Amino acid sequence: MARVTRRWRVRRLGADGSVSERADVLAGEEPLEIRLGGRPFTVTMRTPGDDFDLVAGFLLSEGVVHEHGQIARMDYRSGIAATGERDYNVVDVRLAEGVPLPDTSMERHVYTSSSCGVCGTASIEAVRKASRHTPAGDDATVALGDLLAMPDRLREGQELFGRTGGVHAAALFLPARPHGIPSGRPAGAPDLVCLREDVGRHNAVDKVVGWALREGLLPARGGVLQVSGRASFELVQKAAMAGIPVLSAVSAPSALAVELGEEEGVTVIGFNRGDRLNVYSRGDRVLAP
Amino acid sequence: MARVTRRWRVRRLGADGSVSERADVLAGEEPLEIRLGGRPFTVTMRTPGDDFDLVAGFLLSEGVVHEHGQIARMDYRSGIAATGERDYNVVDVRLAEGVPLPDTSMERHVYTSSSCGVCGTASIEAVRKASRHTPAGDDATVALGDLLAMPDRLREGQELFGRTGGVHAAALFLPARPHGIPSGRPAGAPDLVCLREDVGRHNAVDKVVGWALREGLLPARGGVLQVSGRASFELVQKAAMAGIPVLSAVSAPSALAVELGEEEGVTVIGFNRGDRLNVYSRGDRVLAP
Repeated sequence: MARVTRRWRVRRLGADGSVSERADVLAGEEPLEIRLGGRPFTVTMRTPGDDFDLVAGFLLSEGVVHEHGQIARMDYRSGIAATGERDYNVVDVRLAEGVPLPDTSMERHVYTSSSCGVCGTASIEAVRKASRHTPAGDDATVALGDLLAMPDRLREGQELFGRTGGVHAAALFLPARPHGIPSGRPAGAPDLVCLREDVGRHNAVDKVVGWALREGLLPARGGVLQVSGRASFELVQKAAMAGIPVLSAVSAPSALAVELGEEEGVTVIGFNRGDRLNVYSRGDRVLAP
Repeated sequence: MARVTRRWRVRRLGADGSVSERADVLAGEEPLEIRLGGRPFTVTMRTPGDDFDLVAGFLLSEGVVHEHGQIARMDYRSGIAATGERDYNVVDVRLAEGVPLPDTSMERHVYTSSSCGVCGTASIEAVRKASRHTPAGDDATVALGDLLAMPDRLREGQELFGRTGGVHAAALFLPARPHGIPSGRPAGAPDLVCLREDVGRHNAVDKVVGWALREGLLPARGGVLQVSGRASFELVQKAAMAGIPVLSAVSAPSALAVELGEEEGVTVIGFNRGDRLNVYSRGDRVLAP
Protein backbone atom coordinates (compact mmCIF):
# COMPACT_ATOMS: atom_id res chain seq x y z
CA MET A 1 0.00 0.00 0.00
CA ALA A 2 0.97 3.67 0.26
CA ARG A 3 1.60 3.91 -3.47
CA VAL A 4 2.09 7.22 -5.22
CA THR A 5 0.39 5.90 -8.35
CA ARG A 6 -1.49 2.80 -9.43
CA ARG A 7 -2.10 1.36 -12.89
CA TRP A 8 -5.70 0.56 -13.76
CA ARG A 9 -7.37 -0.86 -16.85
CA VAL A 10 -9.73 1.76 -18.30
CA ARG A 11 -12.26 1.80 -21.14
CA ARG A 12 -12.37 4.95 -23.22
CA LEU A 13 -15.68 5.49 -25.04
CA GLY A 14 -16.34 8.05 -27.77
CA ALA A 15 -19.60 9.53 -29.04
CA ASP A 16 -18.63 8.18 -32.47
CA GLY A 17 -18.83 4.61 -31.16
CA SER A 18 -15.08 4.22 -30.63
CA VAL A 19 -14.00 1.96 -27.77
CA SER A 20 -10.44 1.46 -26.58
CA GLU A 21 -8.92 -0.24 -23.56
CA ARG A 22 -5.64 0.75 -22.01
CA ALA A 23 -3.76 0.85 -18.72
CA ASP A 24 -4.14 4.27 -17.12
CA VAL A 25 -2.06 5.78 -14.30
CA LEU A 26 -4.10 6.92 -11.31
CA ALA A 27 -2.89 9.14 -8.48
CA GLY A 28 -2.53 7.28 -5.21
CA GLU A 29 -4.82 8.16 -2.31
CA GLU A 30 -4.48 6.61 1.14
CA PRO A 31 -5.51 7.61 4.66
CA LEU A 32 -2.79 9.02 6.91
CA GLU A 33 -3.36 9.02 10.63
CA ILE A 34 -1.46 11.57 12.68
CA ARG A 35 -0.94 10.61 16.32
CA LEU A 36 0.09 13.15 18.91
CA GLY A 37 1.59 11.91 22.16
CA GLY A 38 0.35 8.41 21.36
CA ARG A 39 -3.24 9.48 20.76
CA PRO A 40 -5.07 9.79 17.43
CA PHE A 41 -5.24 13.44 16.35
CA THR A 42 -6.60 13.34 12.81
CA VAL A 43 -6.89 11.25 9.65
CA THR A 44 -6.48 12.81 6.22
CA MET A 45 -6.73 11.24 2.77
CA ARG A 46 -3.50 12.02 0.93
CA THR A 47 -1.21 10.94 -1.87
CA PRO A 48 1.59 8.98 -0.13
CA GLY A 49 5.01 10.65 -0.10
CA ASP A 50 6.61 13.49 1.90
CA ASP A 51 4.50 12.39 4.83
CA PHE A 52 6.69 13.99 7.51
CA ASP A 53 6.47 17.31 5.63
CA LEU A 54 2.70 16.89 5.46
CA VAL A 55 2.47 16.21 9.19
CA ALA A 56 4.75 19.14 10.09
CA GLY A 57 2.76 21.47 7.83
CA PHE A 58 -0.56 20.29 9.24
CA LEU A 59 0.63 20.89 12.81
CA LEU A 60 1.85 24.36 11.82
CA SER A 61 -1.42 25.21 10.07
CA GLU A 62 -3.42 24.10 13.10
CA GLY A 63 -1.27 26.23 15.43
CA VAL A 64 0.14 23.25 17.33
CA VAL A 65 3.76 24.21 16.50
CA HIS A 66 5.44 27.23 14.93
CA GLU A 67 9.05 26.09 14.70
CA HIS A 68 10.73 22.81 13.90
CA GLY A 69 12.32 22.42 17.35
CA GLN A 70 8.86 21.96 18.84
CA ILE A 71 8.61 18.59 17.10
CA ALA A 72 10.85 16.20 19.04
CA ARG A 73 10.41 13.33 16.59
CA MET A 74 8.19 11.75 13.96
CA ASP A 75 8.10 7.99 13.27
CA TYR A 76 6.07 5.71 11.11
CA ARG A 77 4.16 3.28 13.20
CA SER A 78 3.96 0.69 10.47
CA GLY A 79 1.34 -1.99 10.65
CA ILE A 80 0.06 -4.88 8.60
CA ALA A 81 -2.87 -3.93 6.42
CA ALA A 82 -5.87 -6.15 5.77
CA THR A 83 -4.16 -7.24 2.55
CA GLY A 84 -1.20 -8.59 4.50
CA GLU A 85 1.04 -5.83 3.12
CA ARG A 86 2.98 -3.52 5.39
CA ASP A 87 1.49 -0.04 5.50
CA TYR A 88 3.02 3.31 6.29
CA ASN A 89 -0.11 5.25 7.03
CA VAL A 90 0.35 6.19 10.69
CA VAL A 91 2.82 8.85 11.83
CA ASP A 92 3.53 9.15 15.55
CA VAL A 93 4.54 12.65 16.61
CA ARG A 94 6.28 13.45 19.88
CA LEU A 95 6.26 17.14 20.71
CA ALA A 96 9.24 18.71 22.50
CA GLU A 97 9.06 19.16 26.26
CA GLY A 98 6.93 22.10 27.24
CA VAL A 99 4.90 22.19 24.01
CA PRO A 100 1.28 21.74 25.07
CA LEU A 101 -0.88 19.14 23.36
CA PRO A 102 -3.85 20.74 21.63
CA ASP A 103 -7.27 20.32 23.18
CA THR A 104 -8.57 17.68 20.79
CA SER A 105 -12.11 18.05 22.05
CA MET A 106 -12.05 21.42 20.28
CA GLU A 107 -9.89 20.44 17.33
CA ARG A 108 -12.48 21.13 14.67
CA HIS A 109 -13.54 24.41 16.27
CA VAL A 110 -12.65 27.78 14.95
CA TYR A 111 -14.17 29.95 17.64
CA THR A 112 -13.01 30.46 21.13
CA SER A 113 -15.84 31.20 23.50
CA SER A 114 -19.46 30.20 23.76
CA SER A 115 -20.60 33.83 23.79
CA CYS A 116 -19.15 34.36 20.32
CA GLY A 117 -21.05 33.33 17.22
CA VAL A 118 -19.60 30.98 14.66
CA CYS A 119 -18.85 33.26 11.74
CA GLY A 120 -16.16 34.37 9.36
CA THR A 121 -15.00 37.11 11.71
CA ALA A 122 -14.50 34.56 14.50
CA SER A 123 -12.57 32.31 12.09
CA ILE A 124 -10.28 35.21 11.16
CA GLU A 125 -9.82 36.07 14.84
CA ALA A 126 -8.83 32.47 15.61
CA VAL A 127 -6.09 32.61 12.94
CA ARG A 128 -4.80 35.91 14.30
CA LYS A 129 -4.52 34.47 17.81
CA ALA A 130 -2.72 31.34 16.63
CA SER A 131 -0.30 32.96 14.16
CA ARG A 132 3.30 33.60 15.23
CA HIS A 133 4.62 34.38 11.78
CA THR A 134 2.04 36.89 10.56
CA PRO A 135 3.32 38.43 7.31
CA ALA A 136 1.59 41.81 7.89
CA GLY A 137 4.90 43.61 8.48
CA ASP A 138 6.70 41.99 5.53
CA ASP A 139 7.37 44.85 3.08
CA ALA A 140 8.91 42.68 0.35
CA THR A 141 7.79 43.29 -3.23
CA VAL A 142 7.39 40.93 -6.19
CA ALA A 143 7.53 41.94 -9.84
CA LEU A 144 4.30 41.41 -11.77
CA GLY A 145 6.20 39.55 -14.51
CA ASP A 146 7.62 37.10 -11.97
CA LEU A 147 4.15 36.46 -10.56
CA LEU A 148 2.66 35.89 -14.01
CA ALA A 149 5.38 33.31 -14.76
CA MET A 150 4.71 31.22 -11.65
CA PRO A 151 1.72 29.15 -12.82
CA ASP A 152 3.78 27.87 -15.78
CA ARG A 153 6.76 27.14 -13.55
CA LEU A 154 4.42 25.23 -11.22
CA ARG A 155 2.91 23.31 -14.11
CA GLU A 156 6.33 22.41 -15.55
CA GLY A 157 7.30 20.82 -12.25
CA GLN A 158 4.11 18.77 -11.85
CA GLU A 159 5.49 15.37 -12.62
CA LEU A 160 2.54 13.47 -11.12
CA PHE A 161 -0.06 15.66 -12.86
CA GLY A 162 1.65 14.94 -16.16
CA ARG A 163 1.08 11.23 -15.63
CA THR A 164 -2.37 11.24 -14.00
CA GLY A 165 -4.06 14.53 -14.94
CA GLY A 166 -5.61 14.55 -11.52
CA VAL A 167 -3.66 16.14 -8.69
CA HIS A 168 -3.27 19.55 -7.13
CA ALA A 169 0.06 21.27 -6.64
CA ALA A 170 1.63 24.00 -4.53
CA ALA A 171 5.06 25.62 -4.77
CA LEU A 172 7.03 28.01 -2.62
CA PHE A 173 9.06 30.71 -4.35
CA LEU A 174 11.67 32.67 -2.37
CA PRO A 175 13.57 35.79 -3.42
CA ALA A 176 16.61 34.90 -5.55
CA ARG A 177 19.83 34.72 -3.57
CA PRO A 178 23.41 34.72 -4.85
CA HIS A 179 23.69 31.09 -3.81
CA GLY A 180 20.18 30.29 -5.03
CA ILE A 181 19.31 27.21 -7.06
CA PRO A 182 20.49 27.87 -10.66
CA SER A 183 17.28 28.08 -12.58
CA GLY A 184 17.99 29.49 -16.03
CA ARG A 185 15.42 32.19 -15.20
CA PRO A 186 15.91 35.93 -15.68
CA ALA A 187 18.37 37.35 -13.16
CA GLY A 188 16.57 38.11 -9.94
CA ALA A 189 13.52 35.93 -10.65
CA PRO A 190 12.39 34.17 -7.47
CA ASP A 191 13.66 30.62 -6.92
CA LEU A 192 11.21 27.76 -6.85
CA VAL A 193 12.50 26.04 -3.70
CA CYS A 194 9.80 23.41 -3.09
CA LEU A 195 6.97 21.90 -5.14
CA ARG A 196 4.57 19.23 -3.91
CA GLU A 197 1.60 17.41 -5.46
CA ASP A 198 -1.34 15.68 -3.79
CA VAL A 199 -4.91 14.61 -4.53
CA GLY A 200 -5.88 17.08 -1.78
CA ARG A 201 -5.25 20.78 -2.31
CA HIS A 202 -4.70 21.38 1.40
CA ASN A 203 -2.24 18.52 1.61
CA ALA A 204 -0.09 19.90 -1.21
CA VAL A 205 0.19 23.19 0.70
CA ASP A 206 0.83 21.44 4.03
CA LYS A 207 3.66 19.46 2.41
CA VAL A 208 5.26 22.68 1.15
CA VAL A 209 4.99 24.69 4.37
CA GLY A 210 5.97 21.62 6.43
CA TRP A 211 9.10 21.28 4.28
CA ALA A 212 9.90 24.96 4.89
CA LEU A 213 9.32 24.54 8.64
CA ARG A 214 11.69 21.57 8.77
CA GLU A 215 14.31 23.48 6.74
CA GLY A 216 14.16 26.38 9.19
CA LEU A 217 12.89 28.75 6.47
CA LEU A 218 9.89 30.16 8.36
CA PRO A 219 8.67 32.85 8.41
CA ALA A 220 9.20 32.81 4.64
CA ARG A 221 9.85 36.56 4.21
CA GLY A 222 9.35 37.73 0.64
CA GLY A 223 7.96 34.35 -0.38
CA VAL A 224 5.14 33.48 -2.76
CA LEU A 225 2.95 30.40 -2.40
CA GLN A 226 1.60 29.46 -5.82
CA VAL A 227 -1.31 26.99 -5.91
CA SER A 228 -2.97 25.20 -8.80
CA GLY A 229 -6.60 25.78 -7.91
CA ARG A 230 -8.74 28.18 -5.91
CA ALA A 231 -7.75 30.27 -2.90
CA SER A 232 -9.96 29.16 -0.01
CA PHE A 233 -9.95 30.47 3.54
CA GLU A 234 -7.85 27.54 4.68
CA LEU A 235 -5.11 28.15 2.10
CA VAL A 236 -4.77 31.79 3.16
CA GLN A 237 -4.71 30.55 6.76
CA LYS A 238 -1.81 28.21 5.94
CA ALA A 239 0.11 31.06 4.23
CA ALA A 240 -0.48 33.35 7.22
CA MET A 241 0.62 30.68 9.72
CA ALA A 242 3.82 30.13 7.71
CA GLY A 243 4.58 33.84 7.35
CA ILE A 244 4.34 33.70 3.54
CA PRO A 245 3.32 37.20 2.40
CA VAL A 246 1.84 36.33 -1.02
CA LEU A 247 -0.66 33.62 -2.03
CA SER A 248 -1.20 33.30 -5.77
CA ALA A 249 -3.96 31.10 -7.18
CA VAL A 250 -4.81 30.11 -10.73
CA SER A 251 -8.53 30.30 -9.97
CA ALA A 252 -10.85 32.44 -7.80
CA PRO A 253 -10.55 33.24 -4.11
CA SER A 254 -13.53 33.01 -1.75
CA ALA A 255 -14.85 36.06 0.09
CA LEU A 256 -13.50 34.85 3.44
CA ALA A 257 -10.09 34.09 1.92
CA VAL A 258 -9.82 37.71 0.79
CA GLU A 259 -11.07 39.05 4.11
CA LEU A 260 -8.47 36.98 5.96
CA GLY A 261 -5.79 38.21 3.54
CA GLU A 262 -6.77 41.80 4.29
CA GLU A 263 -6.74 41.23 8.07
CA GLU A 264 -3.55 39.17 8.26
CA GLY A 265 -1.61 41.11 5.64
CA VAL A 266 -1.43 38.36 3.04
CA THR A 267 -1.45 39.52 -0.59
CA VAL A 268 -4.17 37.40 -2.21
CA ILE A 269 -3.86 37.01 -5.98
CA GLY A 270 -6.43 35.16 -8.08
CA PHE A 271 -7.02 34.27 -11.74
CA ASN A 272 -3.26 34.29 -12.35
CA ARG A 273 -3.56 33.07 -15.94
CA GLY A 274 -1.70 34.04 -19.09
CA ASP A 275 -0.74 37.70 -19.01
CA ARG A 276 -3.15 38.98 -16.35
CA LEU A 277 -3.96 38.53 -12.68
CA ASN A 278 -6.27 39.98 -10.02
CA VAL A 279 -5.02 41.44 -6.74
CA TYR A 280 -7.53 41.32 -3.88
CA SER A 281 -5.54 42.46 -0.83
CA ARG A 282 -2.21 44.10 0.07
CA GLY A 283 -1.61 45.18 -3.51
CA ASP A 284 1.39 47.26 -2.37
CA ARG A 285 3.59 44.16 -2.72
CA VAL A 286 2.98 43.80 -6.47
CA LEU A 287 5.35 45.88 -8.60
CA ALA A 288 3.70 46.69 -11.95
CA PRO A 289 6.06 47.37 -14.90
CA MET B 1 -23.06 37.23 7.71
CA ALA B 2 -23.83 33.94 5.94
CA ARG B 3 -23.77 35.60 2.55
CA VAL B 4 -23.81 33.59 -0.67
CA THR B 5 -21.65 36.22 -2.40
CA ARG B 6 -19.76 39.34 -1.48
CA ARG B 7 -18.63 42.26 -3.62
CA TRP B 8 -14.97 43.23 -3.36
CA ARG B 9 -12.85 45.92 -5.01
CA VAL B 10 -10.17 44.21 -7.10
CA ARG B 11 -7.19 45.46 -9.12
CA ARG B 12 -6.57 43.73 -12.42
CA LEU B 13 -2.97 44.00 -13.67
CA GLY B 14 -1.74 43.08 -17.14
CA ALA B 15 1.76 42.26 -18.37
CA ASP B 16 1.37 45.19 -20.79
CA GLY B 17 1.15 47.63 -17.89
CA SER B 18 -2.64 47.90 -17.91
CA VAL B 19 -4.32 48.50 -14.56
CA SER B 20 -8.04 48.52 -13.91
CA GLU B 21 -10.13 48.58 -10.77
CA ARG B 22 -13.58 47.09 -10.49
CA ALA B 23 -16.01 45.47 -8.09
CA ASP B 24 -15.75 41.69 -8.31
CA VAL B 25 -18.23 39.12 -7.00
CA LEU B 26 -16.68 36.55 -4.64
CA ALA B 27 -18.26 33.29 -3.53
CA GLY B 28 -19.26 33.33 0.12
CA GLU B 29 -17.48 31.04 2.56
CA GLU B 30 -18.49 30.71 6.21
CA PRO B 31 -18.04 28.07 8.89
CA LEU B 32 -21.04 25.86 9.65
CA GLU B 33 -21.13 24.01 12.94
CA ILE B 34 -23.24 20.88 13.09
CA ARG B 35 -24.43 19.94 16.59
CA LEU B 36 -25.79 16.51 17.37
CA GLY B 37 -27.87 16.06 20.50
CA GLY B 38 -26.67 19.44 21.75
CA ARG B 39 -22.98 18.65 21.34
CA PRO B 40 -20.59 19.94 18.65
CA PHE B 41 -20.07 17.28 15.98
CA THR B 42 -18.12 19.03 13.24
CA VAL B 43 -17.39 22.38 11.62
CA THR B 44 -17.12 22.72 7.85
CA MET B 45 -16.33 25.78 5.72
CA ARG B 46 -19.16 26.14 3.20
CA THR B 47 -20.99 28.57 0.95
CA PRO B 48 -24.13 29.55 2.89
CA GLY B 49 -27.42 28.23 1.52
CA ASP B 50 -29.21 24.87 1.54
CA ASP B 51 -27.70 24.28 4.97
CA PHE B 52 -30.23 21.66 6.08
CA ASP B 53 -29.53 19.69 2.89
CA LEU B 54 -25.82 19.97 3.62
CA VAL B 55 -26.29 18.72 7.17
CA ALA B 56 -28.54 15.82 6.11
CA GLY B 57 -26.08 14.83 3.38
CA PHE B 58 -23.13 15.01 5.74
CA LEU B 59 -24.89 12.79 8.29
CA LEU B 60 -25.76 10.31 5.52
CA SER B 61 -22.19 10.28 4.19
CA GLU B 62 -20.82 9.66 7.67
CA GLY B 63 -23.22 6.76 8.23
CA VAL B 64 -25.09 8.50 11.07
CA VAL B 65 -28.46 8.23 9.26
CA HIS B 66 -29.69 6.46 6.16
CA GLU B 67 -33.26 7.73 5.89
CA HIS B 68 -34.92 11.04 6.52
CA GLY B 69 -37.10 9.77 9.36
CA GLN B 70 -33.98 9.28 11.47
CA ILE B 71 -33.59 13.06 11.69
CA ALA B 72 -36.24 14.28 14.13
CA ARG B 73 -35.51 17.96 13.53
CA MET B 74 -32.96 20.53 12.44
CA ASP B 75 -32.90 24.11 13.71
CA TYR B 76 -30.65 27.09 13.33
CA ARG B 77 -29.23 28.09 16.64
CA SER B 78 -28.68 31.67 15.62
CA GLY B 79 -26.25 33.79 17.57
CA ILE B 80 -24.77 37.24 17.47
CA ALA B 81 -21.46 37.34 15.65
CA ALA B 82 -18.48 39.43 16.71
CA THR B 83 -19.64 42.06 14.22
CA GLY B 84 -22.94 42.40 16.02
CA GLU B 85 -24.79 40.80 13.09
CA ARG B 86 -27.00 37.79 13.52
CA ASP B 87 -25.40 34.63 12.16
CA TYR B 88 -26.91 31.41 10.92
CA ASN B 89 -23.86 29.21 11.15
CA VAL B 90 -24.91 26.62 13.73
CA VAL B 91 -27.41 23.85 12.97
CA ASP B 92 -28.74 21.80 15.87
CA VAL B 93 -29.78 18.27 14.89
CA ARG B 94 -32.00 16.05 16.98
CA LEU B 95 -31.97 12.41 15.88
CA ALA B 96 -35.14 10.33 16.13
CA GLU B 97 -35.60 8.08 19.13
CA GLY B 98 -33.53 4.94 18.93
CA VAL B 99 -30.99 6.35 16.46
CA PRO B 100 -27.64 6.07 18.22
CA LEU B 101 -25.34 9.08 18.41
CA PRO B 102 -22.04 8.39 16.66
CA ASP B 103 -18.99 7.83 18.81
CA THR B 104 -17.40 11.24 18.29
CA SER B 105 -14.11 10.15 19.80
CA MET B 106 -13.68 8.08 16.64
CA GLU B 107 -15.32 10.49 14.23
CA ARG B 108 -12.25 11.06 12.07
CA HIS B 109 -11.37 7.37 11.98
CA VAL B 110 -11.83 5.14 9.03
CA TYR B 111 -10.74 1.85 10.53
CA THR B 112 -12.50 -0.23 13.05
CA SER B 113 -10.09 -2.19 15.18
CA SER B 114 -6.62 -1.61 16.51
CA SER B 115 -5.33 -4.83 14.98
CA CYS B 116 -6.11 -3.54 11.51
CA GLY B 117 -3.77 -1.20 9.72
CA VAL B 118 -4.85 2.17 8.41
CA CYS B 119 -4.97 1.67 4.69
CA GLY B 120 -7.15 1.99 1.65
CA THR B 121 -8.57 -1.49 2.12
CA ALA B 122 -9.66 -0.61 5.65
CA SER B 123 -11.24 2.60 4.35
CA ILE B 124 -13.19 0.64 1.77
CA GLU B 125 -14.23 -1.90 4.40
CA ALA B 126 -15.52 0.92 6.63
CA VAL B 127 -17.75 2.23 3.83
CA ARG B 128 -19.07 -1.26 3.15
CA LYS B 129 -20.04 -1.71 6.79
CA ALA B 130 -21.76 1.67 7.00
CA SER B 131 -23.64 1.57 3.70
CA ARG B 132 -27.35 0.67 3.68
CA HIS B 133 -27.99 1.75 0.11
CA THR B 134 -25.12 0.03 -1.72
CA PRO B 135 -25.76 0.35 -5.45
CA ALA B 136 -24.00 -2.94 -6.31
CA GLY B 137 -27.27 -4.67 -7.26
CA ASP B 138 -28.61 -1.74 -9.32
CA ASP B 139 -28.68 -2.98 -12.92
CA ALA B 140 -29.83 0.30 -14.46
CA THR B 141 -28.10 1.47 -17.62
CA VAL B 142 -27.30 4.96 -18.93
CA ALA B 143 -26.75 5.87 -22.56
CA LEU B 144 -23.28 7.14 -23.39
CA GLY B 145 -24.74 10.19 -25.14
CA ASP B 146 -26.72 11.15 -22.03
CA LEU B 147 -23.56 10.86 -19.90
CA LEU B 148 -21.53 12.97 -22.34
CA ALA B 149 -24.20 15.71 -22.19
CA MET B 150 -24.17 15.97 -18.39
CA PRO B 151 -21.11 18.21 -17.83
CA ASP B 152 -22.68 20.87 -20.09
CA ARG B 153 -26.03 20.53 -18.35
CA LEU B 154 -24.22 20.96 -15.02
CA ARG B 155 -22.32 23.98 -16.28
CA GLU B 156 -25.49 25.62 -17.66
CA GLY B 157 -27.06 25.42 -14.22
CA GLN B 158 -24.10 26.89 -12.34
CA GLU B 159 -25.48 30.30 -11.58
CA LEU B 160 -22.92 31.07 -8.86
CA PHE B 161 -19.97 29.90 -10.96
CA GLY B 162 -21.10 32.21 -13.72
CA ARG B 163 -20.81 35.17 -11.35
CA THR B 164 -17.69 34.19 -9.37
CA GLY B 165 -15.73 31.71 -11.49
CA GLY B 166 -14.79 29.93 -8.30
CA VAL B 167 -17.15 27.27 -7.00
CA HIS B 168 -17.64 23.54 -7.40
CA ALA B 169 -20.91 21.96 -8.41
CA ALA B 170 -22.71 18.63 -8.22
CA ALA B 171 -25.95 17.49 -9.80
CA LEU B 172 -28.16 14.45 -9.48
CA PHE B 173 -29.74 13.04 -12.64
CA LEU B 174 -32.56 10.49 -12.36
CA PRO B 175 -34.11 8.37 -15.12
CA ALA B 176 -36.75 10.30 -17.04
CA ARG B 177 -40.27 9.73 -15.79
CA PRO B 178 -43.57 10.53 -17.50
CA HIS B 179 -44.16 13.21 -14.88
CA GLY B 180 -40.55 14.34 -14.96
CA ILE B 181 -39.50 17.97 -15.04
CA PRO B 182 -39.99 19.20 -18.65
CA SER B 183 -36.49 19.83 -19.84
CA GLY B 184 -36.50 20.25 -23.60
CA ARG B 185 -34.01 17.37 -23.75
CA PRO B 186 -34.21 14.38 -26.05
CA ALA B 187 -37.03 12.03 -25.05
CA GLY B 188 -35.84 9.71 -22.35
CA ALA B 189 -32.79 11.79 -21.35
CA PRO B 190 -32.31 11.72 -17.57
CA ASP B 191 -33.83 14.59 -15.59
CA LEU B 192 -31.55 16.94 -13.69
CA VAL B 193 -33.45 16.94 -10.40
CA CYS B 194 -31.03 18.80 -8.12
CA LEU B 195 -27.96 21.01 -8.64
CA ARG B 196 -25.92 22.62 -5.87
CA GLU B 197 -22.82 24.82 -5.79
CA ASP B 198 -20.30 25.37 -3.01
CA VAL B 199 -16.72 26.51 -2.48
CA GLY B 200 -16.11 22.97 -1.18
CA ARG B 201 -16.47 20.01 -3.55
CA HIS B 202 -17.63 17.71 -0.76
CA ASN B 203 -20.22 20.22 0.39
CA ALA B 204 -21.77 20.49 -3.07
CA VAL B 205 -22.23 16.70 -3.10
CA ASP B 206 -23.53 16.62 0.48
CA LYS B 207 -26.11 19.28 -0.42
CA VAL B 208 -27.33 17.15 -3.35
CA VAL B 209 -27.53 13.82 -1.53
CA GLY B 210 -28.99 15.53 1.55
CA TRP B 211 -31.72 17.02 -0.65
CA ALA B 212 -32.43 13.55 -2.08
CA LEU B 213 -32.55 12.05 1.42
CA ARG B 214 -35.03 14.68 2.58
CA GLU B 215 -37.15 14.14 -0.54
CA GLY B 216 -37.29 10.41 0.15
CA LEU B 217 -35.48 9.61 -3.10
CA LEU B 218 -32.77 7.33 -1.68
CA PRO B 219 -31.46 4.91 -2.71
CA ALA B 220 -31.33 6.80 -6.02
CA ARG B 221 -31.73 3.80 -8.33
CA GLY B 222 -30.58 4.49 -11.85
CA GLY B 223 -29.18 7.88 -10.85
CA VAL B 224 -26.03 9.66 -11.96
CA LEU B 225 -24.09 12.06 -9.76
CA GLN B 226 -22.21 14.51 -12.00
CA VAL B 227 -19.44 16.57 -10.35
CA SER B 228 -17.39 19.47 -11.65
CA GLY B 229 -13.94 18.36 -10.54
CA ARG B 230 -12.09 15.19 -9.66
CA ALA B 231 -13.48 11.94 -8.27
CA SER B 232 -11.86 11.40 -4.89
CA PHE B 233 -12.42 8.51 -2.49
CA GLU B 234 -14.82 10.59 -0.45
CA LEU B 235 -17.04 11.47 -3.42
CA VAL B 236 -17.40 7.79 -4.37
CA GLN B 237 -18.13 7.11 -0.70
CA LYS B 238 -20.95 9.67 -0.76
CA ALA B 239 -22.41 8.13 -3.93
CA ALA B 240 -22.24 4.65 -2.39
CA MET B 241 -23.88 5.79 0.85
CA ALA B 242 -26.72 7.40 -1.15
CA GLY B 243 -27.22 4.38 -3.40
CA ILE B 244 -26.32 6.36 -6.54
CA PRO B 245 -24.97 3.84 -9.05
CA VAL B 246 -22.96 6.19 -11.31
CA LEU B 247 -20.45 8.92 -10.39
CA SER B 248 -19.29 11.00 -13.35
CA ALA B 249 -16.43 13.50 -12.99
CA VAL B 250 -15.01 16.06 -15.41
CA SER B 251 -11.48 15.34 -14.19
CA ALA B 252 -9.48 12.31 -12.99
CA PRO B 253 -10.38 9.82 -10.28
CA SER B 254 -7.87 8.73 -7.64
CA ALA B 255 -6.75 5.12 -7.32
CA LEU B 256 -8.71 4.59 -4.12
CA ALA B 257 -11.84 6.16 -5.63
CA VAL B 258 -11.74 3.58 -8.41
CA GLU B 259 -11.02 0.71 -6.00
CA LEU B 260 -14.00 1.73 -3.87
CA GLY B 261 -16.14 1.98 -7.00
CA GLU B 262 -15.15 -1.57 -7.94
CA GLU B 263 -15.87 -2.92 -4.43
CA GLU B 264 -19.14 -1.08 -3.82
CA GLY B 265 -20.49 -1.40 -7.34
CA VAL B 266 -20.35 2.29 -8.26
CA THR B 267 -19.66 3.05 -11.94
CA VAL B 268 -16.79 5.55 -11.81
CA ILE B 269 -16.45 7.77 -14.88
CA GLY B 270 -13.63 10.29 -15.34
CA PHE B 271 -12.47 12.85 -17.90
CA ASN B 272 -16.05 13.29 -19.08
CA ARG B 273 -15.20 16.10 -21.51
CA GLY B 274 -16.43 16.89 -24.99
CA ASP B 275 -17.21 13.71 -26.89
CA ARG B 276 -15.27 11.17 -24.82
CA LEU B 277 -15.12 9.73 -21.33
CA ASN B 278 -13.25 7.06 -19.36
CA VAL B 279 -14.99 4.23 -17.50
CA TYR B 280 -13.02 2.81 -14.55
CA SER B 281 -15.45 0.43 -12.86
CA ARG B 282 -18.80 -1.29 -13.47
CA GLY B 283 -18.71 -0.45 -17.17
CA ASP B 284 -21.76 -2.68 -17.72
CA ARG B 285 -24.00 0.28 -16.88
CA VAL B 286 -22.78 2.40 -19.81
CA LEU B 287 -24.64 1.76 -23.08
CA ALA B 288 -22.39 2.61 -26.03
CA PRO B 289 -24.19 3.59 -29.29
